[in-house]
Amino acid sequence: MASWESYLQQHRARFLDELVGFLRIPSISALPDHASDVQRAAAWVAERLSAAGLEGAKVMPTGGHPVVVAEWLHAPGKPTVLIYGHFDVQPADPVALWTTRPFEPTVREGRVYARGASDNKGNLFASVLAVEALLKTTGALPVNVKFLVEGQEEIGSPQVPDFVAAHKELLACDLVINADGGQWSETEPALLLGLRGLCALYLDVYGPSSDLHSGVFGGSIANPLHALAELLASMHTPDGKVAVEGFYDDVAALTPAERAAIAAVPMDEAAYKAQLGVTELYGEPGYSTWERTWVRPTLELNGMWGGFQGEGSKTVLPSEAHAKITCRLVPNQDPKRIAALLKDHVARHTPKGVRVVAQTGNSMAYPYLIPADHPGNLAARDVLAELYGREPYHIREGGSVPICEVFERYLGAPSVMFGFGLHDEHFHAPNEFFRLSSFDRGQVAHGKLLERLGQG
Amino acid sequence: MASWESYLQQHRARFLDELVGFLRIPSISALPDHASDVQRAAAWVAERLSAAGLEGAKVMPTGGHPVVVAEWLHAPGKPTVLIYGHFDVQPADPVALWTTRPFEPTVREGRVYARGASDNKGNLFASVLAVEALLKTTGALPVNVKFLVEGQEEIGSPQVPDFVAAHKELLACDLVINADGGQWSETEPALLLGLRGLCALYLDVYGPSSDLHSGVFGGSIANPLHALAELLASMHTPDGKVAVEGFYDDVAALTPAERAAIAAVPMDEAAYKAQLGVTELYGEPGYSTWERTWVRPTLELNGMWGGFQGEGSKTVLPSEAHAKITCRLVPNQDPKRIAALLKDHVARHTPKGVRVVAQTGNSMAYPYLIPADHPGNLAARDVLAELYGREPYHIREGGSVPICEVFERYLGAPSVMFGFGLHDEHFHAPNEFFRLSSFDRGQVAHGKLLERLGQG
Repeated sequence: MASWESYLQQHRARFLDELVGFLRIPSISALPDHASDVQRAAAWVAERLSAAGLEGAKVMPTGGHPVVVAEWLHAPGKPTVLIYGHFDVQPADPVALWTTRPFEPTVREGRVYARGASDNKGNLFASVLAVEALLKTTGALPVNVKFLVEGQEEIGSPQVPDFVAAHKELLACDLVINADGGQWSETEPALLLGLRGLCALYLDVYGPSSDLHSGVFGGSIANPLHALAELLASMHTPDGKVAVEGFYDDVAALTPAERAAIAAVPMDEAAYKAQLGVTELYGEPGYSTWERTWVRPTLELNGMWGGFQGEGSKTVLPSEAHAKITCRLVPNQDPKRIAALLKDHVARHTPKGVRVVAQTGNSMAYPYLIPADHPGNLAARDVLAELYGREPYHIREGGSVPICEVFERYLGAPSVMFGFGLHDEHFHAPNEFFRLSSFDRGQVAHGKLLERLGQG
Repeated sequence: MASWESYLQQHRARFLDELVGFLRIPSISALPDHASDVQRAAAWVAERLSAAGLEGAKVMPTGGHPVVVAEWLHAPGKPTVLIYGHFDVQPADPVALWTTRPFEPTVREGRVYARGASDNKGNLFASVLAVEALLKTTGALPVNVKFLVEGQEEIGSPQVPDFVAAHKELLACDLVINADGGQWSETEPALLLGLRGLCALYLDVYGPSSDLHSGVFGGSIANPLHALAELLASMHTPDGKVAVEGFYDDVAALTPAERAAIAAVPMDEAAYKAQLGVTELYGEPGYSTWERTWVRPTLELNGMWGGFQGEGSKTVLPSEAHAKITCRLVPNQDPKRIAALLKDHVARHTPKGVRVVAQTGNSMAYPYLIPADHPGNLAARDVLAELYGREPYHIREGGSVPICEVFERYLGAPSVMFGFGLHDEHFHAPNEFFRLSSFDRGQVAHGKLLERLGQG
């Protein structure tokens, strides 16, 4: 056993104590009252990175919640990796549903319960400890390492893209290791290769200048609610495809190998349906459930409203109707082009007698894809296969992690997703926890990944 | 001039004073705090009917706001007419928009301003004064007369149908004169021949058992908002017809004479559009605007909602979506049958992957139609033609007056609509007023109508 692994074992109790201290800081980025806690967490990370042997560790302002940077750049000729994570956490509401209090970390049955335990403090800290173990035992790292740890991930990282753009040299790297992620199960590893992008469209339908009596005027003018229903219905075919003209034009076709890799990922449809409380699955014909949620684009209504929402009847023909739409996008769709196609569709399909205002929302993310055979992924694959004793699944995710595209855009660096959370760990919900076995495994995995990248 | 008309002129100042006193009572049926005021208005009406010379005037309980009855039945061999009106009024909100206070009646420029001035106290009182003038000057009425004046019209008369059903003998009559209505303009009279009926349907669409992340799950299960939009869109053809199977089956065809009568009613489409704030009219192909609002049935969405309605984006795939629908019905549609057809349509067109609960609402009214050549209408036509110097238009209304069908059902009596309000009098809005010229004309018109019916 390499001596850095022994170091990790020897200091296990201290590391857990330190994690507990980190988890005590209620660094909730969404709540202004906790801004000073976010700042405290930033200081904690900077100090801990220094203590681990990293250089130049400091809290840097962004205009919003801060970021922390640090580096160790004494491996000439070796690649530079940027380890990314975040020290802010989700709000803890509803606190009453927690078995133990969210910011009083408690260890039970091999798990540490606290807000942020899995997302992302435990996962992030594992990467720091790997670096410490290597530096304290070997005096060096196998590659050049930088850290960028942020305090605003849970609110969508509003200032981070500009920070990255303004600090390209400070953050310059060959590869990002994103420590904010997970594995498939306790026994099954996964490589996350792709994330969907996002664009948003808001629709406002205007009819008569004021609400009208539906008995007196109904039948003679267009009802904005009907118009909205018709317009929204026009956006899908009855069998579930998106009917917006040009929507699929840029979608990257899946290779047979990609489809085979996705087909190899376990999908228990009965369990999936039971979890969601639905009796049947429904989506674009010709694709599996994982394909529908990972590699096919969607157009989803997030909200729709107009007219009377109270008890009983109110015979009103309302003046307005509204809808909010987000699309999930896949390689090579451009969120700006899709938003434009949606507006074109709205213009072409606006029913008679109403005026529709279509506005692009601020929420926007590019889809992200890293090849399975990228050297970073090959290294991660080797580490995971060694630690789990089996090949990782090649998965994607339906949601969006915009930071990946930000690193790609400003640093030219792809992201290897390398976290050890599991889906049952209640992130963003009461009773969040992190398995101590994952905490241990993450430390070893990060150390091995740095070694493997140093051999590349 | 008949002496009863002289009587009306001689006592004009007193009648206006009395109307002002009646209007001072804030008999708002919708507000529980005003229940005693509704009761006071009932007592006022009962006393005033007695003072006019009617017999048996009394306030009667209904389980809700009361009704007032009175009668004069000393015209053997002559028909019996039931004069109907109401003494309750709409709320006065927003009071700040009134030039003078809603329950401090003010006479300006030949109009009396107060809540209820036109709807219905002024119109109702005119009919009482006609009866008084006839009784005080001739000692008799040309026909047998009953009064039924209610205190819950503005809240949909919830207890009145049962009251009528339970008092068929007390209310037995050959014809109803409904004093709650209006004329076309100051110079153009109208006979209201038909009213649309009503039925209501509430839709609840259920998808997953809780709100879901639209990125993680979007594309794999049905979205209740999409399903609702599709279901609602299926209820109309793109050109504006109702697409519910069987919806038009029972609709009474219009005779060429009926269409000609409607075509003779003035319609200034430019003014109509300007009034409503729309740039174009829209409705069932092949019908004029009056036909669309008066004699063709409609299916109108009154409300629709689900998911996120706040600022910005929330990437939610919501668990539920909802809609409220009312249909306006025409002769010979049955609201219960139409509600059943709507439910059948929903069952047949429920999109895949969701569960839809369709419930019939309590709001229900049968359409109403009285032939233009009914003897009651012929008498009203003669009176109107004499007073206005021109033939009345044969109009209908798009809204519903359920009491007409109640009288038809329980008393077998059709209703002649005989009021003198005008559309600009702000009923249900701030600054309601009634023209004193209409108050005068109404008194004379009711006297002449009773005379004409006595000659029939």
